Amino acid sequence: MDKPHIIEVKTGKPYAIAVGEGLLREAGSWVATVQKPGRIAVVTDSHVAPLHYPELEASLTAAGFTPFLHVFPAGEASKTLSTFGDILNDLAEHQLTRTDKVIALGGGVTGDLTGFAAAAYLRGIGFVQIPTTLLAMVDSSVGGKTGVDLPSGKNLAGAFHQPALVLCDPNVTDTLPTDVFADGVAEALKTALLGDADLFSLMEQGQWRSQRNQVIERCIRIKADIVEEDEFEQGRRKLLNLGHTLGHAIEKCTAFAVSHGHAVAMGMAAVARAAVANGLAPAALAKRIQAALLANGLPFTLPLPMDEILPAIASDKKRAGSRLTVVVPTAPGDCRLLDLSLTEAQAFLRKGA
Amino acid sequence: MDKPHIIEVKTGKPYAIAVGEGLLREAGSWVATVQKPGRIAVVTDSHVAPLHYPELEASLTAAGFTPFLHVFPAGEASKTLSTFGDILNDLAEHQLTRTDKVIALGGGVTGDLTGFAAAAYLRGIGFVQIPTTLLAMVDSSVGGKTGVDLPSGKNLAGAFHQPALVLCDPNVTDTLPTDVFADGVAEALKTALLGDADLFSLMEQGQWRSQRNQVIERCIRIKADIVEEDEFEQGRRKLLNLGHTLGHAIEKCTAFAVSHGHAVAMGMAAVARAAVANGLAPAALAKRIQAALLANGLPFTLPLPMDEILPAIASDKKRAGSRLTVVVPTAPGDCRLLDLSLTEAQAFLRKGA
Repeated sequence: MDKPHIIEVKTGKPYAIAVGEGLLREAGSWVATVQKPGRIAVVTDSHVAPLHYPELEASLTAAGFTPFLHVFPAGEASKTLSTFGDILNDLAEHQLTRTDKVIALGGGVTGDLTGFAAAAYLRGIGFVQIPTTLLAMVDSSVGGKTGVDLPSGKNLAGAFHQPALVLCDPNVTDTLPTDVFADGVAEALKTALLGDADLFSLMEQGQWRSQRNQVIERCIRIKADIVEEDEFEQGRRKLLNLGHTLGHAIEKCTAFAVSHGHAVAMGMAAVARAAVANGLAPAALAKRIQAALLANGLPFTLPLPMDEILPAIASDKKRAGSRLTVVVPTAPGDCRLLDLSLTEAQAFLRKGA
Repeated sequence: MDKPHIIEVKTGKPYAIAVGEGLLREAGSWVATVQKPGRIAVVTDSHVAPLHYPELEASLTAAGFTPFLHVFPAGEASKTLSTFGDILNDLAEHQLTRTDKVIALGGGVTGDLTGFAAAAYLRGIGFVQIPTTLLAMVDSSVGGKTGVDLPSGKNLAGAFHQPALVLCDPNVTDTLPTDVFADGVAEALKTALLGDADLFSLMEQGQWRSQRNQVIERCIRIKADIVEEDEFEQGRRKLLNLGHTLGHAIEKCTAFAVSHGHAVAMGMAAVARAAVANGLAPAALAKRIQAALLANGLPFTLPLPMDEILPAIASDKKRAGSRLTVVVPTAPGDCRLLDLSLTEAQAFLRKGA
């Protein structure tokens, strides 16, 4: 394989993200750069386990590790305190100690759940992210946000816990179903739109599969850059929520029938239309964003009337008191943060219907 | 009331601990120094709620807060992920936001559970500790260790999460049952033994009730000093585990029939005897510690043969790989950390039977 590209993330505890085709079968020796060979936990879901665990296990064993596997049922429905407890109990039953590590092998649900379990177990042990979806590669495995859903809403409990290492093997995305791949494309387009006009230009025609590795790497660099500057989301990191205020509300109002990436695509298009209607962006911007979503197999219209979606933004977990921050695109590569009251935010977004 | 004494704790996020008789009925105005009046959550247990919540509620309301109460069944059996989940769900149902706070009113279980819920809710909101037991005042409410028990052992999941404010009203300890008060005395004696020979002298005859406030304050200062220096227990903070390696094992082997403070007393006496037998301390030290425990209504003999207790130190959560740190008293106010293999630690402690 070609030599992987390394992105250093200089958070409180710095760590490396390696991107390279074929990296999964080299995982063992990479993990050995952050962990003395010995016992190690691997958490994955019932879908990913048969696809990728055999290769990971062989690689870990070859590097001197003795892995043990914890598998939970695939799907967002598993992202609960109950699964979190199952993982914690399994780590405890295996008597993992403070110097041991956990590997998260999978998509966003696996990374978020496993990262939170690693953050909580013995008040924090290290973990390694091996994302297997495009969405996890470009977004959720970078930045240290971990957590679970509560009955009242998504990601309402969790921790900031940076991984010790992230290993991205773009080849793994070859086996993703079209819709699941598209979920990741939505987050990649979001990242381009808020931070890299050239990347947006590269992606907007939808013909970028041959430059897949480069897209992944550039998205990671943009996100890493933002996270370094604002690890605990006090300011600039809020930009990463572009499309998410409405996106989360859409997921909630459709009882999660619309997937996260698709909801973010819809939310991004709607907030772009709202930006135009509120005089903050030229009409061409909303058209261009909609065309880019279409060319990448993503939706740009709302699945429900806006008035049915807007009440749900009240439960946005990023709300501070009665205020929330809406991320507004003003040009490719450029977004603004608007600090609004709940009522103002609803009035602003209503114009994007 | 006299003006409360303030201890500043300079951790990553600094905070104040106020100690003063009658502080509970002034709580509202103290909380207002760290939180804009408005909605606020109070978590307490079924035992403490009728004793102290009415006074706290009146004080919060007078200061402009609108408190809502979450009560869980009193007892260590509640310190589980299940109760943790109930608290989180209640905070979410009340739509608490990132700028809101939670008050923990109670003993160690309440503080640990509530602190962990505050650490996890929205990836971390602020909390205020109002300890109602001596143990919580001198030990668990200071230092930011929060967590729950797992079926495999105590405090196996949690977070480091410093409070925004701690309010200690020594009058509240007047209503504690003798045994519960003694649990706190064990931790206070431990604190004196590891860091303040004068405090140990003051306490060893057991006649210090008239200087109760001073004892509480000095214990807090010693602990705060250690925590400031080593917030995440990489080194010196391990001293606070004096008596705890065996103490936790005793709790486990007796299925928690022996309370935490009593187990720590037994563990502290045994490790002192082991220090003498291993030539690290004079025989007079173990005798003096045993006499101090006796004078304070605490036990100093083991409830089971040492050989039945020692296997349980293998599940010490502070273990790092196959090694663990044993805290050994060498003189009043002075302890040493011994980094031992599990087998060495067992051999060392066996001599303290």
